[in-house]
Amino acid sequence: MDGVAMNGRQRFMTTLAGGAVDRPPVWMMRQAGRTLPEYRALRAEHSFLTVLRDPDLATEVTLQPVRRFGLDAAIIFCDILIIPEAFGQELRFEKGVGPRLAPVVRHPDDLARLRRADPATDYAPLLQALRQTKAALDGGTALLGFAGAPFTLATYMVEGGSTRTFSCIKRFLFTYPAAADDLLSRLADAVADLLIAQYRAGADAVQLFDTWAGELSAADYERFAAPYNRRIIAAVRAAGAPIMLFLRNGHHLLDSALSSGATGLALDWRMPLSTVIGRAAALPLEQRPMVLQGNLDPIALFAPAAEIGERVRALHAEVGGRTAHIMNLGHGLHPETPIEGIQAFVDAVKELA
Amino acid sequence: MDGVAMNGRQRFMTTLAGGAVDRPPVWMMRQAGRTLPEYRALRAEHSFLTVLRDPDLATEVTLQPVRRFGLDAAIIFCDILIIPEAFGQELRFEKGVGPRLAPVVRHPDDLARLRRADPATDYAPLLQALRQTKAALDGGTALLGFAGAPFTLATYMVEGGSTRTFSCIKRFLFTYPAAADDLLSRLADAVADLLIAQYRAGADAVQLFDTWAGELSAADYERFAAPYNRRIIAAVRAAGAPIMLFLRNGHHLLDSALSSGATGLALDWRMPLSTVIGRAAALPLEQRPMVLQGNLDPIALFAPAAEIGERVRALHAEVGGRTAHIMNLGHGLHPETPIEGIQAFVDAVKELA
Repeated sequence: MDGVAMNGRQRFMTTLAGGAVDRPPVWMMRQAGRTLPEYRALRAEHSFLTVLRDPDLATEVTLQPVRRFGLDAAIIFCDILIIPEAFGQELRFEKGVGPRLAPVVRHPDDLARLRRADPATDYAPLLQALRQTKAALDGGTALLGFAGAPFTLATYMVEGGSTRTFSCIKRFLFTYPAAADDLLSRLADAVADLLIAQYRAGADAVQLFDTWAGELSAADYERFAAPYNRRIIAAVRAAGAPIMLFLRNGHHLLDSALSSGATGLALDWRMPLSTVIGRAAALPLEQRPMVLQGNLDPIALFAPAAEIGERVRALHAEVGGRTAHIMNLGHGLHPETPIEGIQAFVDAVKELA
Repeated sequence: MDGVAMNGRQRFMTTLAGGAVDRPPVWMMRQAGRTLPEYRALRAEHSFLTVLRDPDLATEVTLQPVRRFGLDAAIIFCDILIIPEAFGQELRFEKGVGPRLAPVVRHPDDLARLRRADPATDYAPLLQALRQTKAALDGGTALLGFAGAPFTLATYMVEGGSTRTFSCIKRFLFTYPAAADDLLSRLADAVADLLIAQYRAGADAVQLFDTWAGELSAADYERFAAPYNRRIIAAVRAAGAPIMLFLRNGHHLLDSALSSGATGLALDWRMPLSTVIGRAAALPLEQRPMVLQGNLDPIALFAPAAEIGERVRALHAEVGGRTAHIMNLGHGLHPETPIEGIQAFVDAVKELA
């Protein structure tokens, strides 16, 4: 494609297929959200749950960062907790606390009251938002769908919200391994269904977020997370969709993640991409992920523009054409990130050759 | 020492020196604290800060877990935030929130108001508690001192307490690198002074807690944490004290940690000890840590006793006489850990040969 102008979607999809591009495509986890004044203005009038359930508002919020920064990919505005909600837990957002799910799952008997999700009805607003966003992007920008991974979703379902210690979920897994397998299997099926439904509604690719996987030891990840992720990844790829696996804090899980079968691996800022590339090189070619995504520390966007530019160039030099690379942060944008920091990041990527 | 009965201190110190022992010595991070009914009874009458400042109470709390479980090492009851307090920040503990320090450091100008710590006066209650505990243990149980590492302490000083995103501390480091070096250097000097003072007051060994190091990328750890830790470790060893370095969530920092110069490395539950042993083997013999400590997931102690015993035996088999090993958890005891789980852990270790 040398010398040929590429649009964002071409740049993103070519990279995802391991092809040559003019510069790395760029998007940011949590790019649609509280960092943007236009999002905060919209949210002053509509609650988070309202936006989630209204395809027009969800479409608008998805498009905001693309309009402002000219990103190569849009990620649909949604929340990973729509699956526990479809299972019958009530989802609320408490100011200063975050998401809350109730009633919590704490005992094997609690699984009996969980419903089975039905994508066409339970996710109707999301799928409609995907169709609308797809039309609005008009092939110029890639569109991503996403879901939470089973262990991450189970964490919220058992803890009832965020946690620092993961004591409830681990107690559940370590005490009731058969019930844990039941819950994680149901979640794996639901996640695969959701991701495939998103692909069919217009997502060009999907991302599986295993945000909390890194809290597990390597042995417990192999037991309580990796098999379910592999099952989802295989089903999604069989349906034709490229899929990225995001592991937060998963350096100790790297060998497992590299051979998850995903199209690409999205890494947090802790993992030097040069290390990851070195470890991937030990795998047979057909088992390696096609692309790496990440992984600037999102808090680096609070630094002066010169420091941000240096870090972007250092990251690009580290990857150095050794693998296909989608430029992104190592975790979601912090809500208080200065707009100038985000702009400096995007500008620096666009100046890369 | 085959066939000769060892007491806890002998077992611990022999392991720390790389010698042969009858079974791995055992202690637990945060063993003196809220998991014990006798501690909660004492705290019902005395605030955390009162216990911290009263050598008799601090001695009593230090001895409680040793009496109950017959551990091989006691760790002095204290808090890493006595250094920021000695620097002039006010330390409070808010129920449900944790420690709070004020006024916070956010700008280079804020460093001007920090005092220099004077161990003999600022840490007088701690040093007295060490002398008393040493006498009470009477050579039968090892006694440990400890301190927080500079990056971890700077995090509390800048954030003003706990944080999920580390946005204030990273913004400070990335925006004001010269002021960051000033703060981290002052902390390194104060930490070395504190650890050496603890050793001279009777601690058999000390542990340096870099609880938050794992939040930094490998490159930022080399810039903002590793040099200060190395400086402390060199000073403490020059004074004659064995020193353990604890890294939480530091799998990506492992190569740096292995060559920190510490006597031993204390690891969190994420890092398979077999991986760590393999990586250490690549280092010249004189650069490797003498001993590894850890690293059972503390939440595993919520599981049934049979599962705890299996995990202890699996960990012991993993180390398999390949290196000196101090049995411990991968992080502090969770306050709600059932006593039976702790007992099952200690019992399982004592049954190892």
